[in-house]
Amino acid sequence: MLTVNAYAATSPTDPLVPTTIQRRDLGPHDVLIDIAYAGICHSDIHTVRGDWGPITYPQVVGHEIVGHVADVGSAVTKHQVGDRVGVGCESGSCGECEQCRKGEEVYCLNGNVQTYNGLDTDGSVTQGGYSQAIVVHEDFVLKIPDSLPLDKVAPLLCAGVTLFSPLKHWNAGPGSRVAVIGMGGLGHVGVKLAHSLGAEVTVLSRTLAKQDDGLAMGADHYYATSDPATFENLAGRFDLILNTVSAGLDYSQYVDLLAVDGTLVILGAPTEPVTVDAMSLIAFRRSIAGSANGGIPVTQEMLDFCAEHGIVPETELIDASSINEAYERVLTSDVRYRFVIDISTLHTATN
Amino acid sequence: MLTVNAYAATSPTDPLVPTTIQRRDLGPHDVLIDIAYAGICHSDIHTVRGDWGPITYPQVVGHEIVGHVADVGSAVTKHQVGDRVGVGCESGSCGECEQCRKGEEVYCLNGNVQTYNGLDTDGSVTQGGYSQAIVVHEDFVLKIPDSLPLDKVAPLLCAGVTLFSPLKHWNAGPGSRVAVIGMGGLGHVGVKLAHSLGAEVTVLSRTLAKQDDGLAMGADHYYATSDPATFENLAGRFDLILNTVSAGLDYSQYVDLLAVDGTLVILGAPTEPVTVDAMSLIAFRRSIAGSANGGIPVTQEMLDFCAEHGIVPETELIDASSINEAYERVLTSDVRYRFVIDISTLHTATN
Repeated sequence: MLTVNAYAATSPTDPLVPTTIQRRDLGPHDVLIDIAYAGICHSDIHTVRGDWGPITYPQVVGHEIVGHVADVGSAVTKHQVGDRVGVGCESGSCGECEQCRKGEEVYCLNGNVQTYNGLDTDGSVTQGGYSQAIVVHEDFVLKIPDSLPLDKVAPLLCAGVTLFSPLKHWNAGPGSRVAVIGMGGLGHVGVKLAHSLGAEVTVLSRTLAKQDDGLAMGADHYYATSDPATFENLAGRFDLILNTVSAGLDYSQYVDLLAVDGTLVILGAPTEPVTVDAMSLIAFRRSIAGSANGGIPVTQEMLDFCAEHGIVPETELIDASSINEAYERVLTSDVRYRFVIDISTLHTATN
Repeated sequence: MLTVNAYAATSPTDPLVPTTIQRRDLGPHDVLIDIAYAGICHSDIHTVRGDWGPITYPQVVGHEIVGHVADVGSAVTKHQVGDRVGVGCESGSCGECEQCRKGEEVYCLNGNVQTYNGLDTDGSVTQGGYSQAIVVHEDFVLKIPDSLPLDKVAPLLCAGVTLFSPLKHWNAGPGSRVAVIGMGGLGHVGVKLAHSLGAEVTVLSRTLAKQDDGLAMGADHYYATSDPATFENLAGRFDLILNTVSAGLDYSQYVDLLAVDGTLVILGAPTEPVTVDAMSLIAFRRSIAGSANGGIPVTQEMLDFCAEHGIVPETELIDASSINEAYERVLTSDVRYRFVIDISTLHTATN
């Protein structure tokens, strides 16, 4: 067992605090990763605060993890010591069901292992990336292409694939019109990815405050949803709308922006139910769908695509001691566009 | 102008009554059809009773129309006098938009012409199939294959294509699991079509009252939705669920029956909004969609498919004088499975 420094939540309401956690000894197929950077995802905050149900404390969150391979189990063939690697939202799955066999581990029919707050194969609760090191089965370790800067790449492991997977699944590309609702941690990556895939990209944001950023990232159009004219002007426009906003929306209003055969995909999980007018779906064969992050193959494809197209998230690097402050800033959307924790600062945090 | 006998609604509440209406002189591309049979669709009742909004009276409904070509305009090339033909829900469209060019006239972006209660190109309100004859542009006249019995085929023009179109669009076939909610006029045709397409077919009906019929029509399984165990046993089962029931459903309950990447398609328009839990969509990349009837090419494909596979709806033939009684029986689901009006009885109705 390896003892490593970490930053943990101890209750739904108290600030996260420095602590130490144990990492298991390497099994034959395990990889030990020295974590260099970890992104802060809105899901981390929802989880530690119990928004999605009660959890077991202490809990170390973080599922946007990058670093270097420090050691490998005896049977590992996919990774070598020193490799630049990453870990995303899932760190295990049954490997045998129809979905796992298709490389859709995120939809494992027997329940996959979430990288934090998950049930590990040994029955323990998994602990995530706000820590110095992690042990993960080699099949769930991603390769980070050399051209991607390690201090910026971490958010791709969740935010990146959460947008890339539906863009690919619903065939975004040249000739298609894609809208991204929300210009935050997920949304801004979605704009970059959709643009590089060749789609015509529109941002639908509450205000025009981030319009310059959006256009610079590749958006072709930028509209404020606080302006009712937006919904009149864009009626029937989009083949694909990706909703990254977890707060409740008037879904009927957005469904009316879909073209015939268009799909609105919900990525951020709202706590309230989704309500929509059936006739608006029927009259134009529109769909509302949901999509989770993505399996291992599409996650690797996304990383390679980002390397090829020079895509990295916009990030703000922080010390571990600033995590609690960063959480408050995420909740008020005061970040452009994703916080990344410099895990080297965890070393001193627990001294 | 041609004066023909018809059966019309004169108010939202009064019974339908015999009357006469005018049919326009044949334009170069028009076809005059002597109507032999017209199906009674639930939409007819919703329309005349104002359930979907106020309408102009008198109104002759009926969009499941079959008969013979009696005359053709000077430029008609697709049909000849004597041909067995049909007309469905749409009798015109712009012909120029992206959807019309794809043969998806039902989704015409400039608004198509509904066969009844629609706005015709001359500004008049269209009058439907409860009448002795109708004049329709040749492009919206379907060919009825010789092997299909004319007295039973009418309901295919709406109910048939409303089920066939989504079955084709969402790739129902060998290896796919299809559920049909509701075993009525639409549902029973869906069972026959899905079975002949090679799918594994399950009926989800409120009770088991029509189980024998359903199994005889090709259903592999039949479950009562009044039994809570149905929803436990079938969780995650279906690739495609076709909902033919317009009355409000607990959609979340049915979404949970979808497999990963499964789609629930709403065919009957509920008056209340559709409400569903977003997490249930996200966790398994499920979709809720709507679908209208179908364009002319897929309608003709459906008729040819039915001829090839010997599919006809189960019908009860009635005289025109029984229309009002039939409406009441539709509303209490007391029909197996679709009423068809013998239009020859209209002749005497107005004597």
